[in-house]
Amino acid sequence: MRIVIPLYEGFTALDVVGPYEVLRMLPGAEVVLAASAEGPVRDGVGALALTADATLDAIESCDILLVPGGPGSRRLVSDEGFAAWIRRMDAGTTWTTSVCTGSLLLGAAGLLRGLQATSHWSATDLLESFGATYTAERVVFQGKVVTAAGVSSGIDMALALVARIADRTTAEAIQLAIEYDPQPPFDSGSLAKAPEAARELLMSGRV
Amino acid sequence: MRIVIPLYEGFTALDVVGPYEVLRMLPGAEVVLAASAEGPVRDGVGALALTADATLDAIESCDILLVPGGPGSRRLVSDEGFAAWIRRMDAGTTWTTSVCTGSLLLGAAGLLRGLQATSHWSATDLLESFGATYTAERVVFQGKVVTAAGVSSGIDMALALVARIADRTTAEAIQLAIEYDPQPPFDSGSLAKAPEAARELLMSGRV
Repeated sequence: MRIVIPLYEGFTALDVVGPYEVLRMLPGAEVVLAASAEGPVRDGVGALALTADATLDAIESCDILLVPGGPGSRRLVSDEGFAAWIRRMDAGTTWTTSVCTGSLLLGAAGLLRGLQATSHWSATDLLESFGATYTAERVVFQGKVVTAAGVSSGIDMALALVARIADRTTAEAIQLAIEYDPQPPFDSGSLAKAPEAARELLMSGRV
Repeated sequence: MRIVIPLYEGFTALDVVGPYEVLRMLPGAEVVLAASAEGPVRDGVGALALTADATLDAIESCDILLVPGGPGSRRLVSDEGFAAWIRRMDAGTTWTTSVCTGSLLLGAAGLLRGLQATSHWSATDLLESFGATYTAERVVFQGKVVTAAGVSSGIDMALALVARIADRTTAEAIQLAIEYDPQPPFDSGSLAKAPEAARELLMSGRV
């Protein structure tokens, strides 16, 4: 089972690494991080770089495509070459998935027309501009297309995916391996739940 | 506020990237990934490499030290040079922290003697061999020493840390930014909660 995660300048690291830690444990999984060129690719902050071990062009096909989001995705939606690559991969996948604003890139490739989908809460209008209907759920399955909400949601998506690809016990074993028993100290993880002061602070750009 | 995360061959990527995505948003934060040499450092699976942008020797001091875990930590506990580096950093930190088996490395440096601490559930005996008392909590604060449980727990730790360093509203704003509203599809994230079949599958090494 070949899992390909494309990297691009300005991706968000947790979008990649959350589901990576789950999917890499699927029996038979081979994960490949790819980018336009091999070598380090910087995240949206610039303080972290993941290494691309293959070029996008060198990837013939994959079983699972996982497209991460990040600030850089807003530029990449206009990149015709990247959209064509996404479509080429999607033609051969069992699952085509995204985390956060990675769904914008699936949308730009024309893969979300007429589908329900999710994204980071800040990107819902742009998501819908690609013909999708935004759904405020953490993980949205539409046939083989699976979109997850912002950043940390990729962990939940990957566990749900493992249960479908293998079985529930495998997903539960992986959840135990990564000790995913989340206990956030606050309850501020969605627009609906976040206190007004937290929303205002975030929108102010001071955080 | 300088945050230093040491990388080593065989680290676990989510131990690094979970708290990274939270702490990088602290106002004034500067995060540095460091290793014995600059350049790519492979995780425990080998399918992912993060770039070290500085050498350990070049780091004079930091405000927050965050030591990740991973399969490689079991070798590194015998590395006197690394233990000495941890002690040198700890001498200047406001917070000395670890995720998963990163606590073994704090232990090997002598920083956990007489303290309560946590680690990945598979490493509790080794943790106690360094003079710590294992506590089955997700995040354990002991003065400036903070240890988190396995892999995914670093996100919870980082949010708790932000609340202490800045304030609760800042932590809530960051939680919203990364849409951390966890909804694991199963409830198998700890030894106490995991179904027996999942525990057995994991212990069998087939996952």
